[in-house]
Order: sequence, then C-alpha cells, then structure tokens
Amino acid sequence: MKHRTKHKVVFLPGTRQVEVEQGTTLIRAARMAGLHINASCGGAGVCGKCRVEVEQGTVSEGVSEKFSTDEIAAGVRQACTAKVASDVAVRLLDTAGLKKGQLGVEVPEHHRAAMHSFDITELKREGIFLPPVEKYFLELPHPDHNDNQADGSRVIRALKEQYEERHIHMGLGILQRLRRVLREDDFRVTVTLARPVNKDARSRMVNLQAGNWSHRNFGVAIDIGTTTVYGQLINKLTGEVMAEGGAYNKQISHGEDVITRIIHAEQAEGQELMQNLVVSTINEVIERLLKQHKVDRDEITSVSLAGNTAMTHLLMKLEPHNIRRSPYVPVSTLFPPVRASDIGIDISYYTMVLAYPAISSYVGGDIVAGVMGSSMYRTKKLTLYIDIGTNAEIVIGNRDWLACAACSAGPAFEGGGILHGMRAADGAIEDFSIDPETLEPMNITIGGKPAKGICGSGLLLIIAAFFENKVLDQRGRFYRNLDTWRLREGRSGFEFVLVRAEESGIERDIVLTEVDIDNFIRAKGAIYAGITTLLQEVGLSVADLEQVILAGAFGSYIDLDSAITVGLLPEVDPKNIMYVGNGSLMGCRMNELSNHIRRDVVDVIQKMTGFELSEVPSYKDQYVASLFLPHTDGSLFPKVMGRRRRLKE
Amino acid sequence: MKHRTKHKVVFLPGTRQVEVEQGTTLIRAARMAGLHINASCGGAGVCGKCRVEVEQGTVSEGVSEKFSTDEIAAGVRQACTAKVASDVAVRLLDTAGLKKGQLGVEVPEHHRAAMHSFDITELKREGIFLPPVEKYFLELPHPDHNDNQADGSRVIRALKEQYEERHIHMGLGILQRLRRVLREDDFRVTVTLARPVNKDARSRMVNLQAGNWSHRNFGVAIDIGTTTVYGQLINKLTGEVMAEGGAYNKQISHGEDVITRIIHAEQAEGQELMQNLVVSTINEVIERLLKQHKVDRDEITSVSLAGNTAMTHLLMKLEPHNIRRSPYVPVSTLFPPVRASDIGIDISYYTMVLAYPAISSYVGGDIVAGVMGSSMYRTKKLTLYIDIGTNAEIVIGNRDWLACAACSAGPAFEGGGILHGMRAADGAIEDFSIDPETLEPMNITIGGKPAKGICGSGLLLIIAAFFENKVLDQRGRFYRNLDTWRLREGRSGFEFVLVRAEESGIERDIVLTEVDIDNFIRAKGAIYAGITTLLQEVGLSVADLEQVILAGAFGSYIDLDSAITVGLLPEVDPKNIMYVGNGSLMGCRMNELSNHIRRDVVDVIQKMTGFELSEVPSYKDQYVASLFLPHTDGSLFPKVMGRRRRLKE
Repeated sequence: MKHRTKHKVVFLPGTRQVEVEQGTTLIRAARMAGLHINASCGGAGVCGKCRVEVEQGTVSEGVSEKFSTDEIAAGVRQACTAKVASDVAVRLLDTAGLKKGQLGVEVPEHHRAAMHSFDITELKREGIFLPPVEKYFLELPHPDHNDNQADGSRVIRALKEQYEERHIHMGLGILQRLRRVLREDDFRVTVTLARPVNKDARSRMVNLQAGNWSHRNFGVAIDIGTTTVYGQLINKLTGEVMAEGGAYNKQISHGEDVITRIIHAEQAEGQELMQNLVVSTINEVIERLLKQHKVDRDEITSVSLAGNTAMTHLLMKLEPHNIRRSPYVPVSTLFPPVRASDIGIDISYYTMVLAYPAISSYVGGDIVAGVMGSSMYRTKKLTLYIDIGTNAEIVIGNRDWLACAACSAGPAFEGGGILHGMRAADGAIEDFSIDPETLEPMNITIGGKPAKGICGSGLLLIIAAFFENKVLDQRGRFYRNLDTWRLREGRSGFEFVLVRAEESGIERDIVLTEVDIDNFIRAKGAIYAGITTLLQEVGLSVADLEQVILAGAFGSYIDLDSAITVGLLPEVDPKNIMYVGNGSLMGCRMNELSNHIRRDVVDVIQKMTGFELSEVPSYKDQYVASLFLPHTDGSLFPKVMGRRRRLKE
Repeated sequence: MKHRTKHKVVFLPGTRQVEVEQGTTLIRAARMAGLHINASCGGAGVCGKCRVEVEQGTVSEGVSEKFSTDEIAAGVRQACTAKVASDVAVRLLDTAGLKKGQLGVEVPEHHRAAMHSFDITELKREGIFLPPVEKYFLELPHPDHNDNQADGSRVIRALKEQYEERHIHMGLGILQRLRRVLREDDFRVTVTLARPVNKDARSRMVNLQAGNWSHRNFGVAIDIGTTTVYGQLINKLTGEVMAEGGAYNKQISHGEDVITRIIHAEQAEGQELMQNLVVSTINEVIERLLKQHKVDRDEITSVSLAGNTAMTHLLMKLEPHNIRRSPYVPVSTLFPPVRASDIGIDISYYTMVLAYPAISSYVGGDIVAGVMGSSMYRTKKLTLYIDIGTNAEIVIGNRDWLACAACSAGPAFEGGGILHGMRAADGAIEDFSIDPETLEPMNITIGGKPAKGICGSGLLLIIAAFFENKVLDQRGRFYRNLDTWRLREGRSGFEFVLVRAEESGIERDIVLTEVDIDNFIRAKGAIYAGITTLLQEVGLSVADLEQVILAGAFGSYIDLDSAITVGLLPEVDPKNIMYVGNGSLMGCRMNELSNHIRRDVVDVIQKMTGFELSEVPSYKDQYVASLFLPHTDGSLFPKVMGRRRRLKE
C-alpha cells in the first residue's frame, strides 16, 4: 500500500482533532474523530445535510449547487465529498447535527479485534519448524568391493548417517528409477521425504532427483470454502508466504449452499461434475499463485488443504449423500494423504496432498484447521473460537478439551434475508451512527458512493445503534412513539427509512424493516445460543470465557462493541478478542510448516466433541432466550444493560 | 499314486530278498536287494549280459532272440526287461556278474536325505498361524442420533471391538466405495486387512465387500526359478496346499542363465519384454492352479513369491544392469508390498504381492525363503543349507548368525559341460554300479529305455563308484593300467565306455571322459570350497557342522554317500542331512500362513552376511584344494579315505 501524506483535521467548536490521510473525506474524518454528522445519502452529496465550514486550510471538492457563492467563499462545503488537502480546521454547523452549546453528537470508536497471526520465528524457536515434506541432498559414496550395498540401502544409509532420518519406505515407483537417477549426477541426489503422522511410522520417499534441489521446496495452502477457494504459495525453507489469492468456487453455479450441492452430487454423474468443478477452481488458484513467481509445479512438494466436511468429501470423491440426511453420517472424518494426481490436482506426480480431518458432518476440517492454526489447541485459557459465515462454527475449550458445533445462522450477516441487504461492495452502508435526538443517521458507504443497501457489518452497527439509542426495544421492535418521519408502516410492517429514494443509488427508499431485524436476531440468536448451549453442556458459562478468537471474512469487519450490544458475542473485554482472518487457511499454512500439527491434530480431534445442536434438548430454549437484544437474561450483558439503563434515566 | 500289488523276489545263490511292486524289472529288484548285475545297455534289452534264471514264480517279458527255446523253457530271462508278476526266486548267472562261490557283487544301498516339511499344526500350536492378509466379517450397528460416527470410524471401531485389530489404514480407494458397500447388505461387510511387517505400524485395508466372505481366503506361493516357475494354491484358513504346479520360465527363450537375461534386459524394450515373459509365466501357473478348484481370482488375497535377485528385479521392473557388473550392486534387496496389478499379475486389484528380500546380487530371495521355510533361522544347531543348481547357494549358521554365498558351480549337475550329459529324462542313466573286478557296469536308465546319456544324479553315482573302485585316482584321472577294453583314449583324452553304440539309444558310444570328470570336479570343488571358505571366515570348520539341509530339485536325487565320497558334501552323518525340496516355494507358503515370517525375515536378513567368494582371498586356495576326490586334505573325509585305504590293502 502506498504511504500517503497525513494531515491534521481540527473540528470546531471544541478541539476534537484527528490525523488522516490526504484525500480522506471530512465525514470520515469526523467519524474517526468520534463525531456524528447527519448524512443520509451515504456520501453521494445529494442530501445536502452534512454542511460544514472550512475555517483554515484547504479541501478539494465538497462544493454543491445548493450553496450560494458567498457560502462557498466562506468555506461552506459538504463533509461527505470534501477531501482533506492540508491541515484544516472545520466548523460543524447545526444542519450537520450540531446542538446548541454542544460539541456535537459523539460516535463511539469502533473496536475491531486485534489481528493475530503466527510467528515463524516462534515455530523455529520451539523447534517445531519441520515441514511435512522435505528435501535432502545426498552425496553418496560410490559402490566398491568393500561396500556393494544395494542402491536402495545406500540411499537409506546416507539418510541415516547424514540426516538421522530413519525408517524410510521406498515404493516401487522410486525403486524403478533408482539406478538411473543415482548415476545421472555421479551419486548426488535429492530425496523428497514425506513424514508420517505417527513418529514411529515410516517416512515415505516420494521423489528422487539427480543433483541438488534441496534449496527449492515449496508448499501450497488451500482453504476450500463453499463460496471461495483461497490459496497461499509458501516457501517451506523460510516459512514465507510468497503469493496469496482466491477464486469463487465454481460449484456455485450448482447452488450456494452445501445441501444443494450434495443434492446435485447425488444425481447421475453429479458427483464427478462437482469434483471437477472444485478441483478446477483449486487448479486455477494454484495457477495464479505460480504465475507470480518462478516456481515449477514439481517444486511444490505438498499441498495442505481444509474445507468443510461436504467440500472435502466432494474433492476426495467420497459420497456426500448422508451428510444431509439424519443422523448425518459422513463417509469419513479422516482423509488419508494422497497424491495430487489421484484427485486431479494439477501439480506434479510427486506432490502429496494433506487434508485436515473433520469432526462430523457439520464441523469440518476448516474449523479443525482454525483451531490448529490459531494455536487454540495449545492454550490454557478457556477460549471461544467462532467462524461466522452462513454457518457459524463454534469451538469452546482449551488444550485439554474442545467442544464444537455448527449453527445454521442463515445468510443475514452476508446481507441475505434482509430487504436491502447486500454484499460488501461499493454503495453498501458499512458505517453508521444516529443522532439520539433527531434520529438523523450518518450513513457511510463503501467507496463513498450513493447508498445501495446495507452490508453485514453495517447492519450490525445500525441495529446496535438503534438499540443503544432506544429506537428499538429488546424484542427488536421499533418504539412506536419515535418523533421522526423516518419511522413508518410499510408493506410488511414498521420500517425505518435510512436513505430516501432521491438520495439513494437505487432510486428507492432504503429501509430497515422489523422483519429484517427479526432475521438478524434469529441469526445472532442461533450463534449465541450455540455458544451458551456448548458451555452449558460442559458445565460452564459465558463468565468463564477468557478469550475469543474470531475467524472468517465477516470477523474482520465486526465492531466488537456492537456485536456485544446486540448479543451476538458474549460480553467479554474486547482486548481479549482477537481476529485470525481465514483460520482455515492459517491452519493449512501451519501444516505446511510443521509436521507437529499433523501429529497434534490426531490428539486434538480425539479431544474434540462434536455436538449436533438440533439434538441437544436445551438448545431450543437457549435459542428462544437469545431472540432478544441482547438477551432475555440481561445479567449476561451487565455493561450493555447498564448503558441502556443510564440512557433511560 | 496307485497302490500296486507287492511281490517278494529272492535272489539265488544266497537268500538276498526284497519286496517290490508288481511290474518292477528284475534288474531294479536286484539293485534294490543290493546286488550288481552287468547291464550296460541300461535296460534296453540289447546287450544281453543280464541273463538270469527264474526258478520259481512268474515274470512277464524278459525274453530275447538270443535265447534258445530250451533256455527260455528253463526260465532264462533278461533281468533288464523281465517284470515281476508274482513272488519269484531268481538265480544269478555268471554272465550277470556272479563270481564263483560268491553271492554276487554288492551294491551299497543309496541314502537319500530324509524329507522335511513344516507342520501346520505346529504353526497353530506355536500361535504363529497368522496369514499376512486376512478377512474379517463385521456386523455393524446402524447409525442413529446417539451414534453418528462416520462410516470409516464405524468400521474401524468394529474391528477393534470385535477382533482387537487396531491401527488400520483406509486408503482413498476404499473410502470412495465405503458408503455404498456398507449399505448394500445392511451394514454387514467383509474387510480384508494386510498386516504390516512392523507390529507397531498400521494394517492396510485392501478390500471391502458387502456380506460375509470371510470363509473364502486363499493365497498363492510362487517360486520364480531361472528355469522353472512353481506355484502352490493355499487355503489360508486351513494352511492346506490345494494345488501345485509349474511351468518353464518363458524368459528361457532369451538365455538359460541370469547373465544372458540381464544383457537382454539392457537392450531397448528388453526389460519390458523380460518382465512380460516372467509375469506371463506366473499368470499361466496361477491360471492352472485355479482351474483345478472353484476359486475366484478375487478370493486370492495375497501372493508370496521368491526368486533370485535378478529374477525379482526383472519381475518388479527394477533395472538389473549392475547385478552383472562388479561390484555387483542390485537396485534393492528389499521389495515393498505391491498390488498384483502394479506388476501385471492377473489376479484382482485387491491382491497384495509380498516378495522375499534378497541379501545381495547373488544371494537372492529364494535362499532367504529357504532359510525361513526350513526354519534354519530358528535352530540352535550349526547348519549348512545348500541349494544346488547352476548356481549353488550356501548358507551356514544358526538362529544367531548366518553367512551366505553363491558359488558358480556351472551346469555339470544338470548335465551341462558333460559330453553325454543330459537332463533327467527317459534314457538318462540315473543309477549305476560297477563290478570291481571286471569293471562291467550296471546302467539303470529312467523309464528302462535304451541309454541316451547321463543325468546329474547318475553322474554323481558313476564318479563315486569309479573312485571307490579305483577306476579313478584322486585327481580324477583314470588309472591307466585298468584291465578293461572300456578304457580307451578318445578324441579329447582318456574315456570310459559306459554303453556301446549298438546298445545305446543314440547309436553312439556313451562315454565318460576325463574332461567330463574334470568339469564335475570343478563344480563340486566350487561348492565345497564355498562351504569351507564360509566356515573359515567365521572361524569354524566342517567338523563343527551339526546338520545339513539340502534344497533344490537336484537335492532330492543325490545319493548322500556318493556326494560325500566325491567331496561334494562334507562328511556328515547322513542322518543329520535332510531335504526340503523347493526351499524357496516352502518359504513362500510359510509366508502365506504366518506374518511372523515377514517380521522375522527383517531380523534374519540383518543377521545374514553375504560373502562375494571371488572377493575372499582364501577362496581360491580352498577351491584348488577341493579339485581332488574327495579333497587334497584327506583328513576332512576320514571315512571315505578309510574305505579306499582298506580297498587298496
């Protein structure tokens, strides 16, 4: 990322100030400074409410037809389009929401979870930097009368003498090439060994090359998501990620969710088709990773991958039929190491594919990978790991035990089931605050474009702000007595107008309905109930949680305070909440760098108890209790309820 | 074999008597009674020397044109063609070699080694009856809400609960069929497990069938000889050999010995051709074994095989090039378990092939198999194991250590390099004695056919008889002063006429030349020198040997006294010499019945030191010292030398 010039922005009256990059809009600067500015068009410059006066310094743009020449000369600008060009002093005007004698409405700072990633130096220090497939260069003594061991024994002896590598399995394929390869470069060879999971088992010799190639050892990590397949190209000598990228899972053309895809796979030739689609997506991702670097396919010695149980079944050509049928029995939760070519991954004949094991039909290898990659399995602290997507996967535990479950949260966090919900794209309302008195909103959109809808993180902020400001009651209903034209009865009940048609990018009013809010509450309720049910099953409660690990794309955008306010996350100190990004991918990368992961994962999956929430009788009660903001039992959210109580007074 | 009626034959003068089967010729009966009868034509009925008089009882045939009507009426018959038809009394005549006032010339009884074979009851009693590939029938509990383990885990759990089988590896192929097969017969399945060599390693699940097939488990044992491939079909539930048979190794069309075949394999496509030939021989042998029984190909769960190092390389498609080049480095001495289909053996995709490991280029898996099959590796007694063929392989040792070597004996024992040498077929002189005074021979041929040549076992008897009767001196030269027309100077030196052209089946004199004898002595000398060199290398001598195990086809025909007389075998009490037949095949069968063999063989080959005799400096001296009858050092053969000394007196 290019490093831009920074400027200071001071907001008057008062001395609230913030440092921003050149070109930042004033509305974003205000938001960063914790100040609310009425701005319902989302930055399109059409609602004309966000008027401010630039008293010192220079801004570019921000001029509106609605302003008189005098106003413009006096420095009046639209905060939503005016861009900082130097250090500036900006005065808020009453149209922008300034109250007499006040500094303005404050907007709390967003708290996102601190990014956590693992440290290669740490792996090395702990002595667990040990890729599952490694290369060894050997200079073998020439055979003579005193030493006429077989070629095979000669290689095995050298591995033992030079590298203390014992218990090697040489398959027929290697033996068939052995004589020739040894003599091609005068008994100088590079051996590729795939380590076993079990320490006492034998390493497999997977390749043999004439000459020294030990300095070229690369790996690929692949997260097979239902929607997106992400990959990383890894230098296994240094641990460095050399390239990263993703592509939509081509199976999407046959359904967005796993159930639809399983149904498709059950049709004639459906399984083969679904396998071809996912594998061709993987091949495309790998192709792109390689294009960026001069790495040959046969220099990739292993691929570590993880996906949910259905995705892994489809990739491995295992019949997924019973994953969708009660009692939800997958073919296997363990996946043997295979050659890439066995499943159509186009790398080289010698590349090993290592897939993360699953726990059950609905707690897949992606979650196991996250537990491993985030090091949750090694912590003493009672931890909640949560990966929020269409399905939220939840793991609770520590290094001694782990309980896990999947909740069907539905697509609300991705904008699904929300009247004006949308994916996080230009025009999506991603940041929000509300004037507690006028109930005028500040909508900030992605790309500063006219508002088109609400993305998941925006939805969370809106509902939390509505709840905190008593626009919504605990059941998620609008208070009927609100003094604003924005609340109205629409076709499907009460709704709140966020953006008027003429200010919007879609020429329709953008509203949030009670039905939308209900859908959101069901989604967050399913997750929270999953958390409390799991805790209850192991005799604990949310008060016992010591840390929370968020994973998944949604996790990076979540405002923690809002998530706690609505009761999506339990009330945990935000500094004990961390974000790991794509936990599955992280676990795969970890697996490429440390064979200890594969050893440990065997223990971990044995420690990991999967719960079918639909089979736990108390889950339904927990769910119903969670269909409130933040929860029926206010004592679970003392701070949230305290704030609301104070507001009431 | 049909049980024939037996009759008593009494030879007069004297009371020498013997019981023989009806139809036995009188000459064979005499030989069995230990009596010499001059009979140089070998049973063709042409030399007319073997006249006898039948005094009581009935014989069939035996009448010659040379006899007068009176003679015939008086009971004169040719011993070589007359066949016993009832109890008879037969008088020897002087033409037949009877000396005045004597009972006749005595022929010592032949001593063959006692047949030794392993006992299945014994294996069972010791608890080592444990085939390397076994079938298990499982009735699995149906999945339900309280038990929704994956299909794979369900099978593995049942194996543990029902059979205490742990550590199972299920490959992708099995997993891909698992869901369907489990549900085909209501969760009743038969699992085929291939046990690992290492007790702590995992068993491989090699097949999975719906229903109960555990009562059908068969194996095949294959000895891949350079000349012949032998096979046995084995019922792995009982240990019983159900069928047995062999075929010439089709590689013979490209050379009789391994060196020629290796040279051929080095040519373009030569290796593939040689592989195809041996594998098609194996397939032919298996085809024949199966034809005899209602056994399906996919009921054969494993094949155990052994061959010399070159044969195993050619079968496994390993490049044999360096086996024939100093310092004689094979590609491998260990051969991984493979699927039959990987090397073209036409059984089923699920059949495992287990090949015996070798020690070096010239001490192959066939010898290791023999050491295992004969249980030599478990005995406390200092044992000599010897497999005599074109190459004689020698192993010396006991359960604590083993030393082995291969001697290039040459083809003398198979009739090669001998002017009138031939394979053991109709017309081959296979039994022999000589009248010590007249030096007239008794030649007995295979099938009682006119003599065509001398087979290996006959050659041994002839040379031993010549030496014992002072026809030959210790250097293997004919005494020049022998009083018989049979000794003459031929084209290539002195020779002894065994059969005259007119009595023979080839219309040429059948002779034994000094060159033949020299070749024989070189062959037996190479072997004996191998034995003494190996013993010397480990600080022992022939006097320390406690037992001898003979293997190989030739071993079954060897007259032990003769073998000791000529110095082929060391002077060991014949009751401590046993014969195991095809030791390699025996080892393969053992391997099909006890996985302990595969575990033990790993130790055994580590205990087994291979010697390249050509690299041991003392071998040449030992060899030169062995080029005498029985040996330069008479003290090694006290009994033989004692007999000869007494004869001299």
